[in-house]
Amino acid sequence: MNVTVHGRTRHYRTVTFDRARNAVLLVEQRLLPHEFKIVATHNFRETAAAIRDMVVRGAGAIGATAAYGLAQGALAFRGRDLRKFHRHVDAVYQTLKAARPTAVDPVNAMNGVRATMRAGKTVEEQQKLALAAAEEFANEDVRHCEAIGRHGVKLIRNGMRILTHCNAGWLAFVDVGTATAPMYVAQSEGKKFHVFCDETRPRSQGATLTAWELAQQKISHQVIADNASGHLMQRGEIDLVIVGSDRTLGRTGEVTNKIGTYTKAVLAKRHGIPFYVAIPLSTIDWKLKRGFDIPIEERHESEVLGAWGTISDPQSAIRTPQLGKRAYVRVANPTSGARNPGFDVTPPELITGIITPAGIFRPKELWTQRRRLGFAD
Amino acid sequence: MNVTVHGRTRHYRTVTFDRARNAVLLVEQRLLPHEFKIVATHNFRETAAAIRDMVVRGAGAIGATAAYGLAQGALAFRGRDLRKFHRHVDAVYQTLKAARPTAVDPVNAMNGVRATMRAGKTVEEQQKLALAAAEEFANEDVRHCEAIGRHGVKLIRNGMRILTHCNAGWLAFVDVGTATAPMYVAQSEGKKFHVFCDETRPRSQGATLTAWELAQQKISHQVIADNASGHLMQRGEIDLVIVGSDRTLGRTGEVTNKIGTYTKAVLAKRHGIPFYVAIPLSTIDWKLKRGFDIPIEERHESEVLGAWGTISDPQSAIRTPQLGKRAYVRVANPTSGARNPGFDVTPPELITGIITPAGIFRPKELWTQRRRLGFAD
Repeated sequence: MNVTVHGRTRHYRTVTFDRARNAVLLVEQRLLPHEFKIVATHNFRETAAAIRDMVVRGAGAIGATAAYGLAQGALAFRGRDLRKFHRHVDAVYQTLKAARPTAVDPVNAMNGVRATMRAGKTVEEQQKLALAAAEEFANEDVRHCEAIGRHGVKLIRNGMRILTHCNAGWLAFVDVGTATAPMYVAQSEGKKFHVFCDETRPRSQGATLTAWELAQQKISHQVIADNASGHLMQRGEIDLVIVGSDRTLGRTGEVTNKIGTYTKAVLAKRHGIPFYVAIPLSTIDWKLKRGFDIPIEERHESEVLGAWGTISDPQSAIRTPQLGKRAYVRVANPTSGARNPGFDVTPPELITGIITPAGIFRPKELWTQRRRLGFAD
Repeated sequence: MNVTVHGRTRHYRTVTFDRARNAVLLVEQRLLPHEFKIVATHNFRETAAAIRDMVVRGAGAIGATAAYGLAQGALAFRGRDLRKFHRHVDAVYQTLKAARPTAVDPVNAMNGVRATMRAGKTVEEQQKLALAAAEEFANEDVRHCEAIGRHGVKLIRNGMRILTHCNAGWLAFVDVGTATAPMYVAQSEGKKFHVFCDETRPRSQGATLTAWELAQQKISHQVIADNASGHLMQRGEIDLVIVGSDRTLGRTGEVTNKIGTYTKAVLAKRHGIPFYVAIPLSTIDWKLKRGFDIPIEERHESEVLGAWGTISDPQSAIRTPQLGKRAYVRVANPTSGARNPGFDVTPPELITGIITPAGIFRPKELWTQRRRLGFAD
């Protein structure tokens, strides 16, 4: 997407690869919306750390980062012994996989890279194929997001008020995004609509990343507390919900996404409001048979007990970009602890439709239409 | 309740009156949990400002504060002209009423004070009666909370995990609290249980006030993001929900409470988890016929766009009471705005029971049992 920094507008991808330096280049998402900065990881361990520490986050973005990280690790191998090379690549794979246990994109992306590599007869050939496959994963992610936008735009009518949770925007993918893709297409078609961004505690990706993205694209929006959407639905002020997913089960139609998504789906169902999930194909897990078995990451309690931001005056901070020093403030009682599950699972009966690059499906249709959706036995 | 400050334990009420100084004494709740401090308001305008700016908050606490504020205003009147005195008292009443439009306790409390005053034949007699009536409102609030504890304790069984939202603890009342009252009684009976405190964005009263209260009383508890309760219910980790209310409609059984309460009730219903609301009688509005007509306070957007806390290191801040300077951090994108409704309305079909000082009732029984509950035509 286009980003305007100091008055200059340029096109950026969230994740790219610098071949000359064997480095993965990432938008440092933990500094947004207060600072826009591209950082480089110089080896696969740094790349895994960037995924784990959420320098980069979001289904497609960490998929592409893992794919590039695997290629980066492969390219760093010196020698001609294929067996040693494969042992090395395996270690790289496991390190990158362990960085975010709930997500499926890194695994799918890296499996794709490994399958492509096998065609190479030498270490050097396999190294080249690894990078080509990673580039292809990134490019496909962009094409998929664009296709999601074309399918999803039909759901957006003039005057609609749309709720989204967390960030499934271009920052969560290589470009364009999933939940936001239909909005960007709707805007290009001249449709008028308003977006409510759930704050998305504890990490506030809605208030920071989604609000920043929508502001960059000049889309009408407001941040709301996660507590407020029920009230707005009750008063008829939300017409449509679109969210993303970190892992969708192809066999059951269950959707794993940022903690709080399930709550939005329950509320939308009660109020008869359409609830859509936008996903690229790489987010589909065709193996797992029960949502209950998806590992739910328990994150550090400091996320719940406080907040990161820039120190400012609450009165003058309103809509002024001049802000002070970045800091963590402890909000909660100092002697209390917290629980911090990072994700939840939404069952198919609460989901109106899943917007994929191949069209919009009911959750249960993922399985019946699995050949169209790229399922491989 | 008892509060331990610098190792010394003393009993405090949230709201008291200093007759010698004609001042209302309040626990400064905006500094909690980081500092425990009693502040004084010296005239009714300062008292109204303390209610508006949430130095004091919570149904019973602002009821008692308004009652004392009305007495304070009456006592400040100089002269013997009863007509002028009543015009003055009317102005005091309107100023205090306007401070928090959604709540009903201030209005009920002040109506009680005015009704009692009328028995006086002179300005001086009416002034004395005003203060006596305010004291009686505060004392009755305490007795009511104690009675709520005795009725509500039956709902708590050993090993239960209880969810509460916002703060309906002793800080929200003159003493003891409503939602927390059954917990304090259960603890005194030796029952073991665990409390999940919803953070309760945007003002985080659960993370700050409820967690602090429970820590003071040594009750097992954890803070969770408002987004997490749906997931915990799904996994069978919540057995009971108890919340408070700022206004409950006697005619319909609809409950107004902190934004997000409605969402918890919808989730509890879906999971078959009992959902109780604990209220003193002063929180019942016998007049209003539709919850939709309750004015919902729209608060300042800075509450949603950032957070107050004490600057600290997220790693070392965990469970250490040593914390730094108090600050507001802007979390959200600097160029984005927010919606900030302060309350929502929960319909009776989602409420298992209402715990009152007169016993536990189904929401619709408030009206059929209205004589028992002190309804006056």
